[in-house]
Amino acid sequence: MLVNCVAYQKGEKVADIRREEIGEYLKRPEAFVWVAMFEPDAAEMTEMQHQFGLHELAVEDASKGHQRPKIEEYGNSLFVVLHTVDLVEGTALDVGEVDIFVGPNYILSVRHRTNKGFGNVRARTEREPALLKYGAGFVLYALMDTVVDRYFPILDSMESELEQIEEQIFVRNAARSNIESLYALKQRLMVLKHAVDPLMEATGKLYGGRVPQVCSGMQEYFRDVYDHLHRIHASIEGIREMLTTAIQVNLGMISLSESEVTKRLAAWAAIIAVPTMVAGIYGMNFKNMPELEWSFGYPLSIAVMVVIDVYLYLKFKKTRWL
Amino acid sequence: MLVNCVAYQKGEKVADIRREEIGEYLKRPEAFVWVAMFEPDAAEMTEMQHQFGLHELAVEDASKGHQRPKIEEYGNSLFVVLHTVDLVEGTALDVGEVDIFVGPNYILSVRHRTNKGFGNVRARTEREPALLKYGAGFVLYALMDTVVDRYFPILDSMESELEQIEEQIFVRNAARSNIESLYALKQRLMVLKHAVDPLMEATGKLYGGRVPQVCSGMQEYFRDVYDHLHRIHASIEGIREMLTTAIQVNLGMISLSESEVTKRLAAWAAIIAVPTMVAGIYGMNFKNMPELEWSFGYPLSIAVMVVIDVYLYLKFKKTRWL
Amino acid sequence: MLVNCVAYQKGEKVADIRREEIGEYLKRPEAFVWVAMFEPDAAEMTEMQHQFGLHELAVEDASKGHQRPKIEEYGNSLFVVLHTVDLVEGTALDVGEVDIFVGPNYILSVRHRTNKGFGNVRARTEREPALLKYGAGFVLYALMDTVVDRYFPILDSMESELEQIEEQIFVRNAARSNIESLYALKQRLMVLKHAVDPLMEATGKLYGGRVPQVCSGMQEYFRDVYDHLHRIHASIEGIREMLTTAIQVNLGMISLSESEVTKRLAAWAAIIAVPTMVAGIYGMNFKNMPELEWSFGYPLSIAVMVVIDVYLYLKFKKTRWL
Amino acid sequence: MLVNCVAYQKGEKVADIRREEIGEYLKRPEAFVWVAMFEPDAAEMTEMQHQFGLHELAVEDASKGHQRPKIEEYGNSLFVVLHTVDLVEGTALDVGEVDIFVGPNYILSVRHRTNKGFGNVRARTEREPALLKYGAGFVLYALMDTVVDRYFPILDSMESELEQIEEQIFVRNAARSNIESLYALKQRLMVLKHAVDPLMEATGKLYGGRVPQVCSGMQEYFRDVYDHLHRIHASIEGIREMLTTAIQVNLGMISLSESEVTKRLAAWAAIIAVPTMVAGIYGMNFKNMPELEWSFGYPLSIAVMVVIDVYLYLKFKKTRWL
Amino acid sequence: MLVNCVAYQKGEKVADIRREEIGEYLKRPEAFVWVAMFEPDAAEMTEMQHQFGLHELAVEDASKGHQRPKIEEYGNSLFVVLHTVDLVEGTALDVGEVDIFVGPNYILSVRHRTNKGFGNVRARTEREPALLKYGAGFVLYALMDTVVDRYFPILDSMESELEQIEEQIFVRNAARSNIESLYALKQRLMVLKHAVDPLMEATGKLYGGRVPQVCSGMQEYFRDVYDHLHRIHASIEGIREMLTTAIQVNLGMISLSESEVTKRLAAWAAIIAVPTMVAGIYGMNFKNMPELEWSFGYPLSIAVMVVIDVYLYLKFKKTRWL
Repeated sequence: MLVNCVAYQKGEKVADIRREEIGEYLKRPEAFVWVAMFEPDAAEMTEMQHQFGLHELAVEDASKGHQRPKIEEYGNSLFVVLHTVDLVEGTALDVGEVDIFVGPNYILSVRHRTNKGFGNVRARTEREPALLKYGAGFVLYALMDTVVDRYFPILDSMESELEQIEEQIFVRNAARSNIESLYALKQRLMVLKHAVDPLMEATGKLYGGRVPQVCSGMQEYFRDVYDHLHRIHASIEGIREMLTTAIQVNLGMISLSESEVTKRLAAWAAIIAVPTMVAGIYGMNFKNMPELEWSFGYPLSIAVMVVIDVYLYLKFKKTRWL
Repeated sequence: MLVNCVAYQKGEKVADIRREEIGEYLKRPEAFVWVAMFEPDAAEMTEMQHQFGLHELAVEDASKGHQRPKIEEYGNSLFVVLHTVDLVEGTALDVGEVDIFVGPNYILSVRHRTNKGFGNVRARTEREPALLKYGAGFVLYALMDTVVDRYFPILDSMESELEQIEEQIFVRNAARSNIESLYALKQRLMVLKHAVDPLMEATGKLYGGRVPQVCSGMQEYFRDVYDHLHRIHASIEGIREMLTTAIQVNLGMISLSESEVTKRLAAWAAIIAVPTMVAGIYGMNFKNMPELEWSFGYPLSIAVMVVIDVYLYLKFKKTRWL
Repeated sequence: MLVNCVAYQKGEKVADIRREEIGEYLKRPEAFVWVAMFEPDAAEMTEMQHQFGLHELAVEDASKGHQRPKIEEYGNSLFVVLHTVDLVEGTALDVGEVDIFVGPNYILSVRHRTNKGFGNVRARTEREPALLKYGAGFVLYALMDTVVDRYFPILDSMESELEQIEEQIFVRNAARSNIESLYALKQRLMVLKHAVDPLMEATGKLYGGRVPQVCSGMQEYFRDVYDHLHRIHASIEGIREMLTTAIQVNLGMISLSESEVTKRLAAWAAIIAVPTMVAGIYGMNFKNMPELEWSFGYPLSIAVMVVIDVYLYLKFKKTRWL
Repeated sequence: MLVNCVAYQKGEKVADIRREEIGEYLKRPEAFVWVAMFEPDAAEMTEMQHQFGLHELAVEDASKGHQRPKIEEYGNSLFVVLHTVDLVEGTALDVGEVDIFVGPNYILSVRHRTNKGFGNVRARTEREPALLKYGAGFVLYALMDTVVDRYFPILDSMESELEQIEEQIFVRNAARSNIESLYALKQRLMVLKHAVDPLMEATGKLYGGRVPQVCSGMQEYFRDVYDHLHRIHASIEGIREMLTTAIQVNLGMISLSESEVTKRLAAWAAIIAVPTMVAGIYGMNFKNMPELEWSFGYPLSIAVMVVIDVYLYLKFKKTRWL
Repeated sequence: MLVNCVAYQKGEKVADIRREEIGEYLKRPEAFVWVAMFEPDAAEMTEMQHQFGLHELAVEDASKGHQRPKIEEYGNSLFVVLHTVDLVEGTALDVGEVDIFVGPNYILSVRHRTNKGFGNVRARTEREPALLKYGAGFVLYALMDTVVDRYFPILDSMESELEQIEEQIFVRNAARSNIESLYALKQRLMVLKHAVDPLMEATGKLYGGRVPQVCSGMQEYFRDVYDHLHRIHASIEGIREMLTTAIQVNLGMISLSESEVTKRLAAWAAIIAVPTMVAGIYGMNFKNMPELEWSFGYPLSIAVMVVIDVYLYLKFKKTRWL
């Protein structure tokens, strides 16, 4: 589906144009055409391929979707794949994809499986004619910057989730829910990591050493995108390491809690078993058991039981078994 | 066993030829010969070695089989080893091998231990004469692309298997089957990893920097193969990391479940032990035990037992030991 | 908030100047202006941007704060982000930020979320006119050196904390507090790591190979900063590895301690259960039980119980179950 | 001890020569001398040092033995250290060492702590005069190839050992022997790894980029050795990772098995405790216990015990505690 | 404290000289001065700084001590920091430091916190005038070689310690001492690692590619030092990996031993509980219990108990619970 299609010249919007007019505008000097599509069908992709002379393999990738994030050069044009990551219903993550074709005088963005469009990017870039003069390269920067900035709230939600789990981790009886939360967080972290890490690596090629033609002059801007990706990457690695440690620590807490239960079990077992043993002895049917005849035999035996149990109880309290 | 042997010229099939004719066709300009073999015997390999002038070490490797995936240059020819991985009976993996010799005007593929041939590759390449003009390099691409594309369903089956295990991982009493599934999945993952990782590394040399002669002009195609391999590699690493975490978490679940059993054991032990102790006391044979004379002594003692047990039961319920 | 604003010429302080005068002093030969700000508002940042011609992206970063440590070149100027780490209330860590803009004839430092200023740095640099002649580059070195030197006491406190935990790690019944301390130490270690590692990496570019213009001639000084960072980095990695081992070992100690409790439980259970069983037997109501008639039957049965229990006790002592 | 000493010219054996004649043969064009020694004494090493002009540091290394595998250039000669690994008594590993000095017209191999000589290497090389013309470089290749090929059966024995353990890993009550086997396998794996990894790294320098003079023209052969080493290396890494996972899984199996024991313990404890409690109640000596008077009181009480126990037994069976 | 101060010329010792004479000897051609100091005070360091023109930052480092091992170039001089590691009282490690300043015609070594001097190095170098002609570079090599060679006995003691622990690791009831030994060994290993790893990295720069002026012509010697460091490094990594595995395995042994205790506990509990239950039943006070009247009732009941217990005992023996 074609979302919109606009021609720009010297940093200014010229007109919303029809698909058929693209070829005409591409010939103008200092002009470029910016086309946005959403889940286009095969026919639409083929038309764009012919209009802009896109490379067969790139078009194939964009039609199939489900690529890993990457930036590939085809001659003097670029093919960029970005993953969008959206928070749905609190913590679940939805992964979409934006495929961008950038040439000297065109930029074509193809959105898959995400509803968040880039209308605000278009509005923002049109307000900065000085930068828009850089052409398609600047639009690429603006799109990448927007996609990357949308990772931050997700990262923040993960960081605050980790903090919540960390507060729970030494609480007794929370081990089961902790371990489930830790695993779920790890799963989501991996989703974000798979969106960020390959893109970071690829973006590094847009500002240092030899830079693709369409990005020249914009290097400090792409370095800024790289820097944001690196920040996210470092935070992800930090969360990941703390998650590993937290899972280990949680395992330790489970063992510890079991150890404490075993101690209490042992302590109470002793407290109950001793009177049972004493009672068993005085329940024996020997003819000749003088204590049984004593008038104070019964209360004395009870007293012995109580004294032993109180002693045990205090001893267990002292050694913290109880 | 010779599967087939075809000569091509200017991107078009010329003829199915006999082995003896190979030398003749190799001399034609813009022609190349494509030979496919399946588990050839020593005599066949020696014949091919002479026909195409293959390097002794490469022929030795192809005869012995059981090589790791690799791409080696011998002068202006290439020797490529690929692992094929086939799903058999649901989840077991069968590893085969395809050894490919590529020169400026020939390509020889030798299949070992896999039944899946490359008939469809031949059919497909013959439908694209524009690309087939690139010669043996394009055929190499087509073969590699096909082998690599066959990894995807295996990866998919592993991913869905992991998801199934993840659904089971927090279910009580599933620890034993989970741990077995996790280990089996890890084993299979390593098989795929050993097929993919060395090949990815080797393929990287076919598109960046200095490129072997036979692959020149095809760099974007080999980059595409590399990109697919990288995607598989990244997914394997992701599964691998989640597997490690899942094994740890599963260990935690086992400990947790034992801890819960211990608690229930302790709780029921207490509930049974207390009446046993009380009964023991009133089973003592002291002469002077006034309670024994009371007419309501027996029901009272039973009542005491019940009250204590109900209290214990509720307390254990509250602390979730029961 | 503007902290101070001073002009220097030929390594000597010229005057405290007002913001409006900055432009004038920038024109003088061999002069530079050093401005220090604390959490400036947007207007102040904008003014500085115009005075010194700062790059839009750098100013944006400095206004927003919460950057990762980095050193970026914008043309012939540098933008440096440092994290300050302060110990508060014993062991908690407060992370602040210092953003530094350095050009050929100016240096602007912007402090965020930290109260420790750099008054002493200014005093110290003014005492070394020979070095101050190097201009803004030397001031950058002095600021970085100061920030980095402030990491050492934090590292020392972590090292001594680890040593304290290590002394506790094999002490019985300390597992819970050990595990909490280990996790808390790990959290703090990661904070320091996130301040140090990216900065170390960035500082490496200030002394080897091509060096930014403003740092030329100061390479040995920046290498010294790098070396300090590397030392901290190595210590952090060392602590981190020992922490991982300590957590594992602590887990082992928990299991071991549980194992010992189980053994003692088992031993005492046996010591109590045997007399209970014996007593149970002589509590049976069979008509024909000759022992019951024996006059020494009761003391004999008690003696049997005692002998068995003493035997068990000694045996358990010997096998260290008790 | 001198094993043998042979002169070659133009790829053909000239003569078995005496030590004193070495100098003479070294002067002939296209000739080289191949000396094999076994644990030489200091005098022998010194003599060889003078005959071939070996570097002092290399001779020192070869005399002391116990070097790590390495390939070092001394001017236009090479000093190569290889580890031999022999299987003794089934699975134990014996590590020997072969130190090789290679110059343009000589090759000297010094064997330490291994009985397997290289007689077959000499025989094989003498059968390939076409290759032996390459001189000392080809002999070096043949020796390295032989040593490396001897690693494969060891690797195979480790792989089959791992498979055996893997078959045992989910078997109940095999945990102790599994864990011992896993540790022993890991120890042996590390021995092989220490032989293979440094050598692989060093061999990489014999075929890519600048190659030592004595190896020129033999690059494809050394790449073949490298490739074999890489294959072993990859297998070692695979075994190593599976070992780590297997140790973790085994730990899980131990916990699981304990958990199952605890459950059975708990179940049987309950089944025995309930009749004991009931019997205790009817063993009380209250005057007024109507049930005691009933003629069917005793069988009824037994029936109650049996019913409860059958119910418990079935319930535990259902929840798989039994 | 000045240890000694000697002038050399053309590889021969000229004289022991006084500090004041240093300047004079520095002017002679092909001469160099070698000064050794032990924990010098500030005045001594300042004097040396002026005599040799040492760089301010290097002097600051040497005065403060506690540097990480490193090799830094200051113009045409080198500043080298080495850690000495001494075994004290069996296994404890003492870390000292040697700071070495090397210029074209001087070498100054400063020892901190270690009593082992370098008298033997001086004696040895003076015996090799051919090498001593290389000047200060050779002395640097001799010092580094000596410090590095002193690491080997420490490494050996660690390896034999690991072997001792490995022998104990599968012994029952040794878990606590094993885990303590493993942790202590890990701590000491990290000390050695921190001495070796940075030095190895730094030494790599003394023999490959561009080499500092003072080391030229000595490259094979520094490569030898590097090689020794690499060997130690590889051994440390090996010990480290086995330590990690050993800690895991020990944890497994602890769990296993607990599991075995639980089984024995369960078995004995059953053996005691069954007679107790039977006795309880015949201790009931029902009027109508025919067995109680039988004359052989008592021996029969005892026989039943014994039979059941023998059966249980054999069964537990068979399943290895006992």
